[in-house]
Amino acid sequence: MFLTEYDVIVVGGGHAGAEATAAAANMGSKTLLVTMNLQAIGQMSCNPAMGGIAKGQIVREIDALGGQSGLVTDKTMIQFKMLNLSKGPAMWSPRAQSDRMRFAEEWRITLENIHNVDFFQDMVSGLLIEGDKVVGVKTGMGLEIRSKAVVLTNGTFLNGLIHIGDKQFGGGRMGEKAATGITEQLTKIGFESGRMKTGTPPRVDGRSLNYSKMEEQKGDENPQKFSYTNTPKLTKQRSCYITYTNSETHDLLREGFDRSPMFNGAIQSTGPRYCPSIEDKINRFAERERHQIFAEPEGWNTVEVYVNGFSTSLPDDVQAKALRSIPGFEKAKIFRPGYAIEYDYFPPTQLKHTLETNLIENLYFAGQINGTTGYEEAASQGLMAGINAHLKINEKDPFILKRNEAYIGVLIDDLITKGTEEPYRMFTSRAEYRILLRQDNADERLTAISNSIGLASDDRLKRVENKFKKAGKLVHYFEVNSILPEEINSAIVENNGSPINQSMKMVTVLSRPEIKLRDFLSLQRLNDFLEENELNEEEIEQAEIQIKYKGYIRKEEENADKLKRLENLKIPADFDYFKLVSMSTEARQKLDKIRPATIAHASRVSGVSPSDISILLIYMGR
Amino acid sequence: MFLTEYDVIVVGGGHAGAEATAAAANMGSKTLLVTMNLQAIGQMSCNPAMGGIAKGQIVREIDALGGQSGLVTDKTMIQFKMLNLSKGPAMWSPRAQSDRMRFAEEWRITLENIHNVDFFQDMVSGLLIEGDKVVGVKTGMGLEIRSKAVVLTNGTFLNGLIHIGDKQFGGGRMGEKAATGITEQLTKIGFESGRMKTGTPPRVDGRSLNYSKMEEQKGDENPQKFSYTNTPKLTKQRSCYITYTNSETHDLLREGFDRSPMFNGAIQSTGPRYCPSIEDKINRFAERERHQIFAEPEGWNTVEVYVNGFSTSLPDDVQAKALRSIPGFEKAKIFRPGYAIEYDYFPPTQLKHTLETNLIENLYFAGQINGTTGYEEAASQGLMAGINAHLKINEKDPFILKRNEAYIGVLIDDLITKGTEEPYRMFTSRAEYRILLRQDNADERLTAISNSIGLASDDRLKRVENKFKKAGKLVHYFEVNSILPEEINSAIVENNGSPINQSMKMVTVLSRPEIKLRDFLSLQRLNDFLEENELNEEEIEQAEIQIKYKGYIRKEEENADKLKRLENLKIPADFDYFKLVSMSTEARQKLDKIRPATIAHASRVSGVSPSDISILLIYMGR
Ligand SMILES: Cc1cc2nc3c(=O)[nH]c(=O)nc-3n(C[C@H](O)[C@H](O)[C@H](O)COP(=O)(O)OP(=O)(O)OC[C@H]3O[C@@H](n4cnc5c(N)ncnc54)[C@H](O)[C@@H]3O)c2cc1C
Ligand SMILES: Cc1cc2nc3c(=O)[nH]c(=O)nc-3n(C[C@H](O)[C@H](O)[C@H](O)COP(=O)(O)OP(=O)(O)OC[C@H]3O[C@@H](n4cnc5c(N)ncnc54)[C@H](O)[C@@H]3O)c2cc1C
Repeated sequence: MFLTEYDVIVVGGGHAGAEATAAAANMGSKTLLVTMNLQAIGQMSCNPAMGGIAKGQIVREIDALGGQSGLVTDKTMIQFKMLNLSKGPAMWSPRAQSDRMRFAEEWRITLENIHNVDFFQDMVSGLLIEGDKVVGVKTGMGLEIRSKAVVLTNGTFLNGLIHIGDKQFGGGRMGEKAATGITEQLTKIGFESGRMKTGTPPRVDGRSLNYSKMEEQKGDENPQKFSYTNTPKLTKQRSCYITYTNSETHDLLREGFDRSPMFNGAIQSTGPRYCPSIEDKINRFAERERHQIFAEPEGWNTVEVYVNGFSTSLPDDVQAKALRSIPGFEKAKIFRPGYAIEYDYFPPTQLKHTLETNLIENLYFAGQINGTTGYEEAASQGLMAGINAHLKINEKDPFILKRNEAYIGVLIDDLITKGTEEPYRMFTSRAEYRILLRQDNADERLTAISNSIGLASDDRLKRVENKFKKAGKLVHYFEVNSILPEEINSAIVENNGSPINQSMKMVTVLSRPEIKLRDFLSLQRLNDFLEENELNEEEIEQAEIQIKYKGYIRKEEENADKLKRLENLKIPADFDYFKLVSMSTEARQKLDKIRPATIAHASRVSGVSPSDISILLIYMGR
Repeated sequence: MFLTEYDVIVVGGGHAGAEATAAAANMGSKTLLVTMNLQAIGQMSCNPAMGGIAKGQIVREIDALGGQSGLVTDKTMIQFKMLNLSKGPAMWSPRAQSDRMRFAEEWRITLENIHNVDFFQDMVSGLLIEGDKVVGVKTGMGLEIRSKAVVLTNGTFLNGLIHIGDKQFGGGRMGEKAATGITEQLTKIGFESGRMKTGTPPRVDGRSLNYSKMEEQKGDENPQKFSYTNTPKLTKQRSCYITYTNSETHDLLREGFDRSPMFNGAIQSTGPRYCPSIEDKINRFAERERHQIFAEPEGWNTVEVYVNGFSTSLPDDVQAKALRSIPGFEKAKIFRPGYAIEYDYFPPTQLKHTLETNLIENLYFAGQINGTTGYEEAASQGLMAGINAHLKINEKDPFILKRNEAYIGVLIDDLITKGTEEPYRMFTSRAEYRILLRQDNADERLTAISNSIGLASDDRLKRVENKFKKAGKLVHYFEVNSILPEEINSAIVENNGSPINQSMKMVTVLSRPEIKLRDFLSLQRLNDFLEENELNEEEIEQAEIQIKYKGYIRKEEENADKLKRLENLKIPADFDYFKLVSMSTEARQKLDKIRPATIAHASRVSGVSPSDISILLIYMGR
């Protein structure tokens, strides 16, 4: 059936699988993507959005490394927002909504355009293993396909079980079959597997909503994008709409609790703490009077609307009644009810930092199968697994990102060393070096190293070098040139700062929190400099961040040093973690249960972030 | 869950279901489309092409009636050909290839734009029946949704079973689940059901084909379209490529016959005679040295290629080996193997001419569930069922097309009165009035009657009236004006005709087979007339057809009269049908088996076409 033995076989065409396929093939591996439905490559299982806090940074990192998710998103987005712009640039987080159908189509076309990628539609039902090495896959049709490496990216499909109220159906996603065979084979070999669950909200008919009762949320006026390359800018956008649940909604939802698989014991596995279902929210935060709901369009033309914030597996009649108690949703027509899904995952402590399994050589796991949640988390693992599979079979050094190099480094390090007992998603708080790991400098951090292993193109590298050379010039300009009081004081006063009374280095003035670089743009000599050196918006912004953030970056480095020094500090056995109110609830619960002996031990506990450790240290007087 | 009782519920979003939904809703019924996967509305299960011989006429009829298939095709086509242009206009048959993904997307958007259409994603598992009336549906999720009428369009999904070699999987289409429950319920009530099968060829990677070994087949230079409205004209097209099997291919295929579900007894049900699998072709026509294969692109951008002519359910390794023996396919990489599928259907003799079932009031069946095959056959039944469901619940007269009004009339009349024992597809030979039922005049035949029941818009009707008024003017111009020998003889001689030697009515000259209307276009007075009356291409073509076809149309009418007169003619009990070599094999086999007593009886036998009856009459001396 197949003409050759492949270098790499990727199982599953979700976000992880698509990136893994692209990476391995772009680096030169003959790659076969085997997926259950070729029409559903790059399908977004849940909301049609990429990015968001910490996740947006990951997409930028994927792009900087030469991955595809940023490009696909840029080409298909219908709205873009830079979140957290009012906070420091470490918190700036790009988020885009995509046209769901176009997104999948674009992924398919992207992969088709990669010379080394072959496709096959089938369900992989097992692995071909010789000794302790994987040598290919077996499929549901009974085919055996050989390869040097295999990347498993099965997402939520392994023994997937869908729940709506007290009803259950097998499936990997609503309307799609579950995958069987792989878990059974791997656990027999000695892999440990577990169950997790996730959920999705109902989709409704936008024509049945009353938007006049909601708040419009437009995209950014000057929308940016994910890719550092010159993908086109958005020229028009679609709006989202915000509304809120109320006590009636909560009462109606509660009426269904006895038929809720979450509460009646039907679902035992753990769901994503930070993407809770609406029933979970009103149960855990009974004191909250309302929860925010976003009505998000699913594409340019479709009337289908995603009800963000209303994930639920309550019975469909309860879903409908409760939903209709929300302002604007009084007459909502439901396209598909929300549901929960349980699926198998493999605790990721069974992997190396390359995402290769410890037990079976040349077998890689990436995405939701490793206990993560989220497209971005999945895509980045896929990228890293694809890269490492290629490098390994070519006997090259592994490619591992460090915690201070990338969120992707943090993600994989967390997974491998801490494991996870509930669906893992990325947060800025998980990264101790988050001030270094910004969305604006992922290219500076990553493009060169990716270029050195043969993934990011030379063109990309040149772009980055050029950007940072030019930004550096501008930083230098601010460092050596001064500004007179009369040139800047009106701007300072306008922003409620205290005026300067003698000439000062421009860099000093710009370091003030109330002042922005654009306040200097009335200076003719600065404008001349910008024009002469052909600096574009992105480069100017970069210079501004470098200048304004210098202090924070230094502090961050000191903090990290301190953490390293105090690693062996002992924690009293009877330490009362619940006193630490500024520490996250998750961390307090976990630390209280596990009772680590040292700071080093505490920092390896899943769910405990570097900032939780800082709080602990402060409390311990360090 | 649902805010209202619906007027019409349509089950299934294939071609039949999509048209039924659009028709009922456009006429004013509150319509709910329930389908298993909202992402797969209007999915083309097999080749991404609409139209072809007799089928193209049906699409034109659907359009003339105010259905959507023509519009959707026009907007998504990548190639257009008018087949049979060298034959008379009764045989002209439009055929288009569409971009598979865009086609489905366009159907979805089309339905979303119809005010009265609601959507729900779920599997219908049974009907709500009170007395002998349907009052709604039950779904897999356990919902009960009420309505006044229900249209079932389950396609190949009812207890679908997929075969590849000796492997079998449940499924409604590869990668999609089968539907269960409906057959079981209906047979319990007293419906008769049967099994049919169909098949599809493998899809391959276009990048692995060597097109230089194949013949390019371009679209028409001046591509036309399906809709009579002003959908945009194609400006660029993608080509198909032709190649042939050879004796090596046939030998390789034969090696797999012992593992063929068609030959080893695994599949008992009947497949489409006129869409045979490649194994069937080499088995039944062992004398043929080669069979034609078309490599057809699946869309504008995708590299996926449909291997038309190579439908097969042989084991995948046999498929691959045999395929690669075909010139141009030596290195073909397979995306998905071909397969056969068996599914339940309901013999359509259980229906009225409105497609309502005899047993259960307000329950309609349309599409493949009635034992037909083909998108066009399905779509047209869906349209008629949607219309009639709406009319019935509004207590209006049924809408039935007669055999001399439309191919759709022939189709439904054949189904209802003759039934079918194998998947039924349309042919021009099935229509005794085929010279009347042309693709160029479906609007004349159907738009007014559709407008009168409130479906085809007034705009459409005006367009038609205008077209035929203007064409009529031109016909009249040809009837009253004459032409001189020196004005036309050079054209006549060029086309090997014998010159005229005196002034003649233009209509007489144009009636000659060798002369076309464009041969008159050197006449200044004709050009002035065309310009004055603002006649466009379509109107001029229409006039030409009316003039040149006058004789044939008369003959056709006579034939039909004769048939009517001789209905009661007795056929000898020992009549040897196999002597009638010009009669179709199918008709000879069926007549020989059934041995009808009279001509009327013979004409009602499934598989016996009006032209078969003509041949029989001629042989019997009539
Ligand atoms: C109902 C639902 C709700 C979710 N809600 C959220 C949420 O609120 N927030 C959030 O961040 N994330 C959510 N997610 C998770 C998000 O969808 C995933 O994290 C992400 O899609 C994972 O990507 P992946 O590539 O690992 O797997 P998937 O996107 O699941 O893709 C897996 C792919 O592998 C294929 N496949 C699986 N098994 C086989 C096999 N044996 N052979 C061949 N092909 C196979 C499948 O067909 C599919 O194409 C949700 C997912 C689901 C299903
Ligand atoms: C493998 C294959 C090969 C084919 N080959 C050919 C060919 O060579 N030539 C040819 O002319 N035709 C061929 N066909 C037939 C052609 O695809 C059909 O004739 C046409 O699609 C029928 O349209 P339909 O609307 O009746 O059903 P379909 O297109 O099958 O659509 C049925 C729809 O109903 C939905 N559905 C089914 N049951 C339920 C339920 N219980 N609840 C909710 N939704 C439901 C399905 O999800 C689907 O959307 C082939 C079909 C298949 C599957």
